[in-house]
This record gives sequence, C-alpha cells and structure tokens, in this order.
Amino acid sequence: MKLSSYFLPVLKETPSDAEIISHKYMLRSGMIKQSSSGIYSWLPLGLKVLKKIENIVREEQDIAGVNEILMPTIQPADLWKESERYEDYGKEMLRINDRQNREMLYGPTNEEQITDIFRSSIKSYKELPQLLYHIQWKFRDELRPRFGVMRGREFLMKDAYSFDIDSISSEESYNRFFICYLKTFERLGLKAIPMAADTGPIGGDLSHEFIIISQTGESDIYFDERILKEGDQINKIDYSEDLASHVNKFKSYYSASDDKFNREKFDEIVDRKYQMHSKGIEVGHIFNFGTKYSKIMKANVLDSDGVEKSVHMGSYGIGISRLVGAIIESSHDENGIIWPEVVAPFKIGLVNLKPKDEKVTKVANELYLLLNKNYEVLYDDKKDNPGVKFSRIDLIGIPHQIIIGSKASSENVVEYKNRKTSATELIKISNLSNFIDKLNT
Amino acid sequence: MKLSSYFLPVLKETPSDAEIISHKYMLRSGMIKQSSSGIYSWLPLGLKVLKKIENIVREEQDIAGVNEILMPTIQPADLWKESERYEDYGKEMLRINDRQNREMLYGPTNEEQITDIFRSSIKSYKELPQLLYHIQWKFRDELRPRFGVMRGREFLMKDAYSFDIDSISSEESYNRFFICYLKTFERLGLKAIPMAADTGPIGGDLSHEFIIISQTGESDIYFDERILKEGDQINKIDYSEDLASHVNKFKSYYSASDDKFNREKFDEIVDRKYQMHSKGIEVGHIFNFGTKYSKIMKANVLDSDGVEKSVHMGSYGIGISRLVGAIIESSHDENGIIWPEVVAPFKIGLVNLKPKDEKVTKVANELYLLLNKNYEVLYDDKKDNPGVKFSRIDLIGIPHQIIIGSKASSENVVEYKNRKTSATELIKISNLSNFIDKLNT
Repeated sequence: MKLSSYFLPVLKETPSDAEIISHKYMLRSGMIKQSSSGIYSWLPLGLKVLKKIENIVREEQDIAGVNEILMPTIQPADLWKESERYEDYGKEMLRINDRQNREMLYGPTNEEQITDIFRSSIKSYKELPQLLYHIQWKFRDELRPRFGVMRGREFLMKDAYSFDIDSISSEESYNRFFICYLKTFERLGLKAIPMAADTGPIGGDLSHEFIIISQTGESDIYFDERILKEGDQINKIDYSEDLASHVNKFKSYYSASDDKFNREKFDEIVDRKYQMHSKGIEVGHIFNFGTKYSKIMKANVLDSDGVEKSVHMGSYGIGISRLVGAIIESSHDENGIIWPEVVAPFKIGLVNLKPKDEKVTKVANELYLLLNKNYEVLYDDKKDNPGVKFSRIDLIGIPHQIIIGSKASSENVVEYKNRKTSATELIKISNLSNFIDKLNT
Repeated sequence: MKLSSYFLPVLKETPSDAEIISHKYMLRSGMIKQSSSGIYSWLPLGLKVLKKIENIVREEQDIAGVNEILMPTIQPADLWKESERYEDYGKEMLRINDRQNREMLYGPTNEEQITDIFRSSIKSYKELPQLLYHIQWKFRDELRPRFGVMRGREFLMKDAYSFDIDSISSEESYNRFFICYLKTFERLGLKAIPMAADTGPIGGDLSHEFIIISQTGESDIYFDERILKEGDQINKIDYSEDLASHVNKFKSYYSASDDKFNREKFDEIVDRKYQMHSKGIEVGHIFNFGTKYSKIMKANVLDSDGVEKSVHMGSYGIGISRLVGAIIESSHDENGIIWPEVVAPFKIGLVNLKPKDEKVTKVANELYLLLNKNYEVLYDDKKDNPGVKFSRIDLIGIPHQIIIGSKASSENVVEYKNRKTSATELIKISNLSNFIDKLNT
C-alpha cells in the first residue's frame, strides 16, 4: 500500500481527553476516530489490526470444533422477559422501541437468543454437544465510557455457547474453551492468566476470567507467579487429550481477581515469595451456568431414556476490539506502538527519505514492487520531510522498517531498523529480499 | 466438515409465511432463523455464503483502490440534524435515546458520519480524491418487512463514499464504482443491468441502480435488451483505461426502473423488437450528489488557488445480505438451491448412503480425509436413510455430489452427480481425485 493513496490521518498533538497510552496512540496514529462517547469508527490502520485479531480468534474457535453463526444486533425484549433478565440488566442495556412500538434492545450478550435458536432446532441428546460462536458488535451503555476501545459502548465480541446433556459433559465443554482461550491469547503474544471470577448478570457458579497483567488495567489481580510458567506448553495440547488434567494444573495455582480474592486463603496456600499482586486487563471470560436459561426457556432434549431434560449450558466471551487496546498497552514505547508480528497491520514499512530525488525514488519504487509481492508493505512515498516520516513510522508500530536514503542510489545500500529493538543494519539492496525472508524465522 | 458435527437444522416442512422461493429455501435449508420481524440469525450454512459474497465485494473494492474502514452502527442524531435529514428520514430510521437521554440512531446509511470523518482529517486538495468503504450492518425500520433477507430490517450493506475537488473528478469516481459494480456482480454470476434511477432521500441528480432480472423482484424495469451483451467484456476493463467511454456505452442503451421510466422516450429510442419489460431485484445503487452534504456540514478543503471549496461527493451501496436471496432467486430448481461455485458454502457434498456398513463407511471416511485436504467438503456421515440424504444434499445446493453406496466397497466405484445439470457418472475411486481436480477447469 502506498501511503499517498492510504487514508492515515495521523495527529500531531496528543488528544487531551485520552487517559491511557493505547487510547492516545490509537487516536494519534489514525487507527480510530471517536463518533460519540464510547463509540468509534475504525479507520484503515485500526481495522486491519482488528481483523487480524478477529481472524486469529476465529481460527482457534474453528480448530476447537466450534461452529460459527451470526446473530443480529437487535433482539426482541420478549426473549429477555422470558429469561427474567430484562429488568435485571438495568441501564447498561440499550432499549429501543420500533415503529410498531415493540420493545427491542441492542444485544449486550446473547444467552437468550442462542437458547431460542437451540430449542427450535435440537430435540435429541444424540445431537449434543453443540458448540456455537459468533463475532458481532455488542452495545453496553456504560455510565462512564473511557480508555477508548478498552471500555467502549459499542464493541466487538466473540461469544460462544455450549449445550450439553449433563453437568459432566458441560464441564468438558468448559474445559475445551478454557484451553482454547489460552491458545488464542498465546498466539496473540499475550500471557493471559485464568482466574476464578464472579459470574455477575450471566449467572452460574463456575467462571474464569482471563486477565493480562497491565498497570493500566481496571482489575486487581492476585496470583501465584508459578501459574505464568504453566502456560508455556499450551500450544502442544491437542483437543483429543484429557483436557481436565491440563485445566486442573492451572486451577491448582491460586489466582483470583477483585471480588473473589480472599487474603487469608492466599496467604495460606501461596508462599510469600510466589505471591503476586498487580493490575490487569480482562480479555476473556467463561461461564458455566448449568440449566439457568434452559429451564426457564424450556430448552429441552429427549435423553436416551426417553425423558425430557433441560440442557446444561455455558458461555464464553473474548473482547476483540478491547484486545487491540490491550495489545498496545503491553507492547509500546515512548515513540509509539510496537505491533507483535501476528497482528501487525503491515509487516514492512518502506520509507523513501528522498521523494524528490529521482534516482532514490526509482530504487524505492522498485523495492516496493518487489517486496509487495510477498509481504504486506506500507510504502511511505509522501513528500514530507525525514523527521515527519521517522516519527510516523515509529508511531504506527510496523515491526520492520526499510529506510531508503541517498545511499540507495549511490552505494546500493538501504537501512533496516527493527521497531522493537531499535537495532539498525545496513543492507545491500541485492541482499534485501533474502534478508527479509529470514526475518520470518 | 462432518455433518454429524455441523449445525444444519434442515426443516421438513416449508414455512407457511415465506412468500418467495429464496426465503423458503433459506429457512428450510437451515441457513437462517428469524429472530423477529425482518431480523434474522445466520446459521453456519447461511453465514458461509454471506461471507463468500462479502469477500468478493471486498476484493473488488480493494482492486478498485477503495480503502476499507468500519463505522459504528449507532450514530449521534446531531450529525443528522446538521445535514437536515433527521426529520426527513421518517419512521424508517430507528431512533434511540441512551441512558443520558442523548438522541442516537441505528444507521440506515452513513453519508453524515463519513463526511464528519472526512472533514476532521482531510484539509487539502492534494489529498483528493478519497475513496472509502465499509461493510457494516444497517437498520431500516421497514413498515412491512418481507421476502426474508431481501427486505429485512437489519441487513448487511457495503457502502462506499467518494470525495473529489470538483464535479469532473467526482464523475470519474462515479464511473470507477459503476465499472467496479459490474465486475462484482459478474464475479457473483449475476447479470446486473445499470439503470437510471431516482435518488430518493440520498439526494443528487445522477444515480444508477443495478438490477438483476427476477420475476420475484419488486422493481419494474424497462430496457433495451442489447445492454445485456454489453457487460460480457467487463472483466477485461482495467481501471487505468478511459472509464467514461465504457460507462457511456452502457448509458447509450435505454434502461430505467419504476419512477424514471418514460414510455414515450422508450418507444422513441428503442426499436420494439429490443424492448424488454420485466421485474427485477435491486442489488446495488450509486449516487453522485455533489456538495449536498459537504456544503451544509462544512467539509471543505483548500484548493490549489488557496481558496476553500466544498468537496464533491458520491455514495455507492451493495446489499450484501440481500444478494444471498437474489442469487437463490436466480439459481434454483424444484429440489432446492443451486449455488454458483464462487459462493457455494461447500464445493463437494460427500454422501455416505450406507453409514451402518463398515466397509462402505471406511471408504467414505478415507475419501473425506483425502478430498478435505484440498476442497471444502461437507461429509454426510449421519445415520439417516438415503431418501433423507438425497433430498437434503439437493436442497442445500452444493455444486458437486459424490454418492458413496455399496459399490464403493464391492466395485471401488462411486457416483458423481452435478447438482445443476443432474448429470450422473460412475467414477472409479482411484480416479476420483483427478476427476474432481478437473471440475475446476
């Protein structure tokens, strides 16, 4: 992509209302633009990252054997009255009357709707378990939206739901998502800690949050630091293995957030030298709530003994738009964002420092055509001065920079800069392709 | 994908409230489920088709040099008051008050919001033209939602917007989308006819609808039948060519829908033998409305002469969720859907007719593993009887069927059936891979 034909409205000033670094950098680098309080438009650079995260989340759901569907954003209030959550949900729920004066709402979550789909389709234990997910915009009318996409009102969430014949099988589904979530966050370059959690308005008595350590997080977290090592082998776990034993290893370490924290228990179980207390960002939350919705909404199946039974359910959420902010919080420096390779909007930033020099520009154009065949390249072909170009390419956080200056035409040499380490290196143009191929390994 | 672990709730009965064939087949084949009037959940089979269409639309936008962004679904009413469309839009607009009692709305279209993004980012003629698109759910509170996804309330639309320095350049952008749309529909296997159209609440005086012929369409269309041939070479047009001359060729044939139709002019310009009158389905609509929004919303740039000018704009929509229905309307028979290859949810339907026969099932399993490496395969491994299997695989419209019966183990032979032509052929299993590879060409 040539920067001259890209829509990248980089801001010179740091927006004064942004409190945390991810919010500042997302606004400054032209990733998002606020539409109204807690609601954002995603501009090309931001959308690219959002989609990469979404795709990784999707792939990991697919690998875990979950089927993708897509429920609408606008739901009928009747379903929520049936589950008796309509009044409970309070002002966070965006309530709407349509032109026929029917009560509708913008879905903050989808337990009711998926239960309705399930009960009209699945009638027999033979068709269980069913694991379904969707990736859709949600709305929660936060009293105080803040931190940009970290606590927005309209946000993108992956939510999955499981339906099982009994509580044993339901816990197997729960464990499957438990492992799937750890795999997903690992792929995103994040170390997420599973923590016993309260269930809030979703309900049930088994629940874990997945939290990444960050000083700007809203949750207080307490854990045995040895749990951090436990996740190192997560990629090697296959879903055909005994997942319960893996999950139990994580559960064997004390970890709890906010409300669930118990100081006495913490001191009793965890040796002082392993005790960790920090702030954290919640990036996922899983719930097992048995028959809470299926009973009241009559989501029954015929069991093998011919008796109707309420199915056992769980729900499993990952905040996809929030993850964009969370990744920036955990990967940046004073000059801007440092994207992990897997979610970087472009792999290579190609910077022409001498756009008015014909010879240099000829080399730059040729290199762009060459590299663009195999990699996602952002080519800064604009007529700005070098200072603007250097700070912009640092700000937007592309992992690998190729800087093309006067030596490109005089000595056939360009400079490589690694955004993360700031290490630079002169590269012969004839070796450049080779050099970049090796960056992958 | 094994059918036994897929969520495909096929209905035995034709739903009584579905008036048109696409609505009937989408419900029966478990592609969608109604959530409330005009609002649908997309189940796995339906979502797969929706995503394939979305990706083709996206690719063609990208090829045309349009940058993708994503605006939120919920917009502030203030923007619409600024453009003076807030009251005009009437009851089709879903109006919402949030918890702070601010007036919001669910976007039926995005001219205001994109103009707001533009005016805060682009200040100079040097950065024009700007072409931006997004693919997002919209809401129009139709008085009488019907025909399933063809006239739903919550629907998926690709809408693009162009910003140019003057009307000449703006018409070039318009022509670019004109050609892009024809290319897009051609790729989807649809013959779309561009027609002069009214502009309605969007405004402006230059507008075309893209309409496909269908007896279940809601529009009356009148055209010179020779325009149908004009599109045959659309794929060969490159965006670097003189697009105006191509567009003018289409415009040289009379074509008009509903309100724009003029009988006298039709008879005057088009010889009787070329006159066509039919029903049609609108699948795209493009508008050039000059400075209608930019003037009132102060979307100005500095021109080369240092004078501030209002930018000239256009907008360009494709109904993505509607296209799912439109494709079915134009490609089905009495047994069900016939998917064009490019949007088919699976390329191959592998049907094991003898799931209780160990030998046959062994062959079927092996073929599934083999074919699934290179193709999207739906493997019917369920224990239903052959009649159920045959009618289900026809109903869901997978282009190529491989039927595995007792001959698979006794004679190493399977049956191939082409869904479209109904032609069948016996294939030696040793030749099957080869045979299927050739189906691509």
